[in-house]
Parts: sequence; C-alpha cells; structure tokens
Amino acid sequence: MSEDPYLLLDAKLKRIQALNSISGLISWDELVNLPEDSADQRQEQCAAMAQVCHAASVDPEIDTLLSELETRDDELDGDQRIVIRDARKSYNRSAKLPAEFVSRKARLDSESYHAWVEAKRNANFSSYAPFLQRQLDHSKEFAGYLGAIDNPYDCFIDLHDPGMDTASISELFEELKADLVPIVSQILDSAIQANTEIFNGFPIAQQSDFVKQVTTALGFNYKRGRIDTSIHPFCGGNGADTRITTRFDIDNPLDSLFSAIHETGHGMYEQGLPIDQLHNALGQAAGMGAHESQSRLWENQVCRSRGFWKHYEPELRKYFPEQLDGVSSNALYLAINSVSKNPIRVDSDEVTYNLHIVIRFEIEKRLFDGSLSISDLPQAWNALYKELLNIDPKDDAEGVLQDVHWSDASFGYFPSYCLGNMLAAQLWYAAVEELPDLENDFEKGDFSRLLQWLREKVHRHGMRYDLKALAMEATGQELSPRSLIRYLKERYLPLYA
Amino acid sequence: MSEDPYLLLDAKLKRIQALNSISGLISWDELVNLPEDSADQRQEQCAAMAQVCHAASVDPEIDTLLSELETRDDELDGDQRIVIRDARKSYNRSAKLPAEFVSRKARLDSESYHAWVEAKRNANFSSYAPFLQRQLDHSKEFAGYLGAIDNPYDCFIDLHDPGMDTASISELFEELKADLVPIVSQILDSAIQANTEIFNGFPIAQQSDFVKQVTTALGFNYKRGRIDTSIHPFCGGNGADTRITTRFDIDNPLDSLFSAIHETGHGMYEQGLPIDQLHNALGQAAGMGAHESQSRLWENQVCRSRGFWKHYEPELRKYFPEQLDGVSSNALYLAINSVSKNPIRVDSDEVTYNLHIVIRFEIEKRLFDGSLSISDLPQAWNALYKELLNIDPKDDAEGVLQDVHWSDASFGYFPSYCLGNMLAAQLWYAAVEELPDLENDFEKGDFSRLLQWLREKVHRHGMRYDLKALAMEATGQELSPRSLIRYLKERYLPLYA
Repeated sequence: MSEDPYLLLDAKLKRIQALNSISGLISWDELVNLPEDSADQRQEQCAAMAQVCHAASVDPEIDTLLSELETRDDELDGDQRIVIRDARKSYNRSAKLPAEFVSRKARLDSESYHAWVEAKRNANFSSYAPFLQRQLDHSKEFAGYLGAIDNPYDCFIDLHDPGMDTASISELFEELKADLVPIVSQILDSAIQANTEIFNGFPIAQQSDFVKQVTTALGFNYKRGRIDTSIHPFCGGNGADTRITTRFDIDNPLDSLFSAIHETGHGMYEQGLPIDQLHNALGQAAGMGAHESQSRLWENQVCRSRGFWKHYEPELRKYFPEQLDGVSSNALYLAINSVSKNPIRVDSDEVTYNLHIVIRFEIEKRLFDGSLSISDLPQAWNALYKELLNIDPKDDAEGVLQDVHWSDASFGYFPSYCLGNMLAAQLWYAAVEELPDLENDFEKGDFSRLLQWLREKVHRHGMRYDLKALAMEATGQELSPRSLIRYLKERYLPLYA
Repeated sequence: MSEDPYLLLDAKLKRIQALNSISGLISWDELVNLPEDSADQRQEQCAAMAQVCHAASVDPEIDTLLSELETRDDELDGDQRIVIRDARKSYNRSAKLPAEFVSRKARLDSESYHAWVEAKRNANFSSYAPFLQRQLDHSKEFAGYLGAIDNPYDCFIDLHDPGMDTASISELFEELKADLVPIVSQILDSAIQANTEIFNGFPIAQQSDFVKQVTTALGFNYKRGRIDTSIHPFCGGNGADTRITTRFDIDNPLDSLFSAIHETGHGMYEQGLPIDQLHNALGQAAGMGAHESQSRLWENQVCRSRGFWKHYEPELRKYFPEQLDGVSSNALYLAINSVSKNPIRVDSDEVTYNLHIVIRFEIEKRLFDGSLSISDLPQAWNALYKELLNIDPKDDAEGVLQDVHWSDASFGYFPSYCLGNMLAAQLWYAAVEELPDLENDFEKGDFSRLLQWLREKVHRHGMRYDLKALAMEATGQELSPRSLIRYLKERYLPLYA
C-alpha cells in the first residue's frame, strides 16, 4: 500500500463519495418509487445512512492527512491544491460543528418545517415567526463555528457559490434591478399576452415519448442516466448515474417538457464532469449558480428559441395532431415564452423570475445585518413585491410563506438561481460568437456543437474555477447582468411589442 | 438511556437491519433501474455498503451484550430467547470468519463466477472444475470456523433452513423420490400433452394490468410494495417496503403472470411478518424452505387450480379477446398445468421440478462426504438425470453447468425449493380442511380467508418455529412428502389420464 498522503486522502474521499452517493440514491428512490406507507422505514434508513456518511466525513485521519499535505504545498500541483483546499473546507464544515449543535439543528429543522407547513396552510406568518427567528440565530451560530462570526451571510452564500459574497451579489443585483424593472413593466403592460390555456388532453404516454426524444437529442446520456417522474422535478445522482425527473399534466405538455429540459441541463453538466474525479473537487460542479447556468441555458436560451421550435413544432404536432389543430404557430410560440404577473416564484417566467430572487436576497441580507427584524418580514416582503413587480400578495401564503427554503435555514440559496441566469446568458452570447450559425444547428435538431463547447468551457473544469473565474475563463468577461438584460430584451421585447 | 442489555441489543439490531435494508435497496435498484453504463459506480457503492454492514454486524459490543444476556437466560421470556439465539448465530457467522478468509472468498467468488460463465458458454466443465474444487474446500473451511468441521454440509443446510440437516432431508427426499418417479413417468408417457405455443402477441401493457389485478386480489399490499420488471423475477425488500418483480414476453403471458404470483407469495409472507420486529428473528422468515412454501402455495395450489381459473379465465379473455379467440378453455388449463421432459430446472414444471432438486441434493451430499469427486461430477449428474427423469443432457451446459448456485458455493440452497413444495402442499390440505369450501372463494376471486389463515399459521411467527416445528404447528403433522405426492396426483393424473 502506498503511504503517499495524497493517495491516502484520495481513498478516503472515494469512500465518502460512495457513501454519499448511496444517500443520494435512497433519497431519489424516496421521491420516485417509495410506496405510500413505507415512509417510516425510509426515515430510519436515511438516519442510519446520514450517521454513516457523517462518521466517514469527520474521520480524524482526514484532518491529519490534510494538515500534512498543507505543509507540503510546494510539492503539489495545481489540481492537487484545488482538491485539498475543497477537502479542507468540507472537512471543517462537518468536523467543526459540535455534535450537540448538529442534533439541536436537526430537531429545529423538523419543527420549523412543520411550523412552516402549518403557517402556510393558515396563511399566518406569526405562528412561524419564532421558528424562523431560531433558524436565524442558529445560522449565525453555525457561521461562528466556521470562523465567519462577523460575516455570517457571506458564509451561507459561499456554501452555495464558492467565491461569491454579499457585496458582489449586491452590486450585480442592483445593476440587474435597474435595467430589469422597466422591461418587466413594458412587457406586463403590453396589449399582447400569451394564452397558456390552449392545451387540453395531451396523453401522458406521448408526452413522455416526446420528452425522451428531445432530451436525447439535447445530449443527455441515457446509458448513464434515466428519467422518471416525481412530484417536483429534480436531478439526482452524479455523472456516473444521472437521474432526472419530470412530472406530467395532461393539460400542460409544456410543463413536463421544460421541466425535463431544465433537469437535462443539470444532468448534462454532471455527465460532463470528469468521471474519474467525482469524489473530489475536480469532478464536482463549481457551485449552485454554475449548475443553474446549465439548466437555464438549455431551458431558456436554447429551447425557447425560434430555431429550436422550427425543428420541434412539427415534431410536437406529429405527437399531438388533433390537440394542436386549433393552435397557431404564433400562439404556441407565445405560450412557450409567456410572461405574466405572478406572485409565486416557482410559477413565474424567466423575465420576472429574477426580481423574485432580488427580493429574497435583499431580505436575507437585511435579516443577517440586523436592519430587518423577523416580525417586520411580511411587510418588507409585500413592499418589495409592490415596488419591483407591482404585486400585492393576497396573504402571507401567497407572500412570505410561499417558499420552503428558510424553514431549514437554506439562506444564501436563492441568489444562485439569478446568478445562474446571468451566467447562462453570458455563456450563450460567448457561444453564439464562437460558434457561427449556432441557431441553424437547432433548426436541424443538432445541439452537439453547443454541448461540446459547454463541456470544454465549463463542465470539464469541475471546481477549478469559482463562479466569477468561470465566467471570465469561459466568456472572457467579468460576471455581469448585461448579457441577461440583452437576452431578455432581444427575446421578449419583439414578442410583446 | 436505558442500560437494559436487551434494549441495547435491540438498538444494535435495528441499526444493522436499517443498513442491510439499504444494501438490499441498492441491489434492487441495480436489477431494476441501473443504466447500462453505470455498473462501475454501483460496484463501489455495494462494496462500501458491504463494509459498513459488516462492521455493524461484528461490533464487539454485540458479543458483550449477548454474553451477558446468555448468562441471564432465566430472566428472559421465550420471544427474547429466540431473538438472542438467532442474534448469536448471526453474530458468529460474521465475526468468526477471519477477515483474510472473507476477502479470499470474495475473490474466489468473482473468479469462480466468471469461470462458470465461460465454461457454460463453451459447454466445458473441465475448465470450471478447479474453481468448484476450491469452492468446496473453502466451504469446508467456512464450516470449520462455525464449529461444524465434522458436518460441513449440515452447516450449509442450516444456513438456508435452520433446524434441517442432511439426514432429515435424505429421509424426506428418499420417500418423495420413490413415489414421484412413477408419477412423472406416467404423465410424460401420456398421450395427452399440453401445447404451450398457443400464445402470441399479448401486449405488455395489458399483461401488466392483468398481473396487477391478480396480485392485488391475492392480497399483495401495494401501499407497502411495488412491482417492477427485471430480467430474473425476484422479491426484494421486506414487509415495510416489499419490492417484487416480474418479466414480460409478448408471446408468453403465463410466464409474467406466474412469475408475479410466485413473487407475490414471497412478498405476502414478508408483509405478514410482524412489522415492528423486522430487525430480529421474530420478524424474519423461518427459512428459505418456509419462504418457498408461500410462493409455491400461491403459484401452484391456488393459481393453477380450477377454481382460480373459473374466475380468471373470463378476466383474461377480457384483456385479450382476440389473442385467446382460438384457444379453448381446456387447452388453456392444460397449458397452465403443462408437464414436460425438460433438462433445465428453471424451465421445468412443478411435477418434475422436485426431481431436479433431489438430484442436486444427492450430488451436494456426496461432494461433501467425499464419495463423489469434482472430476466425476458430470458423469454422476448425467446418470442421475437418466435414472430419475430419463433425460440425457446434450452437453455440460444443459447438464451440470446449468445453475449458477455452486459458483459462489451456495451449497445447501437447492433442497429448500423442494422442502418448500412439501410444506406448501401440507399447508394446502390443512387449510382446505379448516376452511370449508375454500376453492369456492377462488371462484369468486376472493383469497382473503386463505391469506388470513397463512398469516395466522405461518407469517406472524417469524423464526419462532423452524421448518419442522412450523409444519407441526401449522398442520398438526410432521413435515413429509405425502401431501405433495397427494396433491400432484390429484392435480395432474386426471389431466393426463
């Protein structure tokens, strides 16, 4: 056996990855396959597996190996340094939390989740407020263990997007907001509005076949992946076995399609990461924002484009000749690119979506810096919705209680969605510039040049670059909202003019 | 926390069960869901999980707790004694094997499996013979670690059917053989022969619906289980989440149906075990033979009966009106109860099947007692097939190489199938006696009285009774082949007279 500490660390990381991937598989199975009365055993399995994974990740030998490797920095190559830096971060995140805190937090997550469900049902924020207060306090405590007592929100942002922080995001979002608010007004005030009620009676079996055809054409590797159905679409597993899901509604074929395409984007990122490095930073996504850039680019820039639909409208009509008989090409394309005033983030379109995120970031930032108290949260929420989207939520369920994220203190998560949209648009224009006549490919149902470009520019790097560095490396430009604004204007203003 | 050693042991067993059930789930997923190029990662996951399960099962604290409880035998109740006795057996089975032996055996299993595949492909036993010899040697070594150096085959039988041994099975099988051989001859010599080639073009979707209808009616609880497809049908999971599979052939609807029914029998046994005791002997099956008795009883005694088909022939014809248009009721019923001379065990019917098992038991016994050498195995095999079934295998692939079992030293496994058939028939006549007009229930598609009776007589006891004791407890009679012979005569002789 080798005594090389790097190889010893590598073996430890491989074992952690194998165990974590099992946890992932049983979670996938829970969402896709679990019989309705089998939840009790699954809970025990998850708890047992979480304990096994935690024990593997806090193995003190990892600390010893890392410490030794950290003193030999000059003997390491660049890739090894990246692996070690991330392994140290992960180790500290697990090992620096006192066991007492971890179990206290797990109890709070459970209580807080149930309180959120109850509060949302009753559209009553006040019953949930004390739990949210405790989650905020726990989050600051958590940041303290990780050495971020003075900048706890930065610590949470870094959990999702390494390299980003509150100040950078504030700057990006301020610029985005200034340009986007007038665009949203212009579209929502337009006399032209999409009709999304034109779809009725699309049999699931054919929807499923169409989804399979499209996702295969985009480049999802079904030899290393599957698609199934679940209540909420998601992408699980990793590049060695990528499991995406969608959901089907007989009266909403666009939902199943775009959900599947979105998850396909995530899945193809996973499948493009170096498969022999899945256990370390070189084989893992650069962050949530980078991940979202991939799902959004395929979902929006590619699959809502004219070029894509030149090819796929006739295909769709082959599957559903009668159902689409009365739907014109224009009506179809407008429905695909529908923009509407919607108080609910997850139901909103790609134009207004970004403002939903800006609002959440603003609120999280103020909760952490103390300028907003939990008790004032609903008022602040409603004021921001009024200001940016001209929406008055009818109650807290439609307002501040709509998202599950804060119930388990997933702070710093929302911004990734919008950062992903920015990077997606930025990658899009860089690809269009480097790959002549790219949209012509789509008209032929060919997406291979784009996928190859993304593999080269984004996927193969793993965590080698953080979000900002990745933007610069892949597009030659700083991460910025300008491409997103340009894209939204080019796509949507002509449609709604 | 309680310091009661029984409760501490209980917690350990619960954790082992949770971890083992995760291993089971990932194996199920491998056979049902795994994408074709994702096998490498699954192998790593299985290895990691096996190591975790092994570590949990050899936890020395279990030994300490068991030793303490074993000295306090008089303070324990009967159920606790059963749990402790089995926990001790399981612990010893894991902990008494040297790590070096376990890894040597794992390597041998892998090499030996590949040698078997290759030998079977080439119909050449001699290339596989050295591997089988090493498996036999390893099996004796294994028995030695478990204190059975003088009776290694008994040790393997006990692994599958606690309480059984070579002598008991020899006696049962001798009696069975004497009565069965003439019955088989009589049927195979009959002028009446079933035609199983009458089924063509049965769409899978309808087959699947029919299978679901039948298995639901039998009593499989789909709220705690699922049915999927796999190459080889099996029953995985446990009573908290029971996962059965079948397979579909468009030209063989009886195969999908009877495979599903067989696994439903296994599944309903699992679902009838006490769900709060799945982690210990009270919530686990009494052995492989007992398990097989449940699958066989539903598959054969119930679902090949006239009563069953009085109800389900019209149902089947509703699903497949055109396909069954030219098939008479008699031809259908005869195909369902087809008996034929087949050299392959897994393709054989329930009459001849038992002789395939008798042959394998005879050979395993002689391999272990030294009266048969590996090099003489093919000749002995062929001689027994000639003697009992009047079959001359055309080569080793059709003969001694047909089964995978010996490649990983699964000795003592085959007899369970036949013991299960014996118990199934014995339970059947006991049920018929205690439940008046039972076959009338089937004519109405009602199986609830029989299932309830099996729950009461067999399922709820877990491992409280071993196979012999279970037969006595449930039927009031010693385990014997008499009921099986009676059943085969009553079912088959009139059909083939």
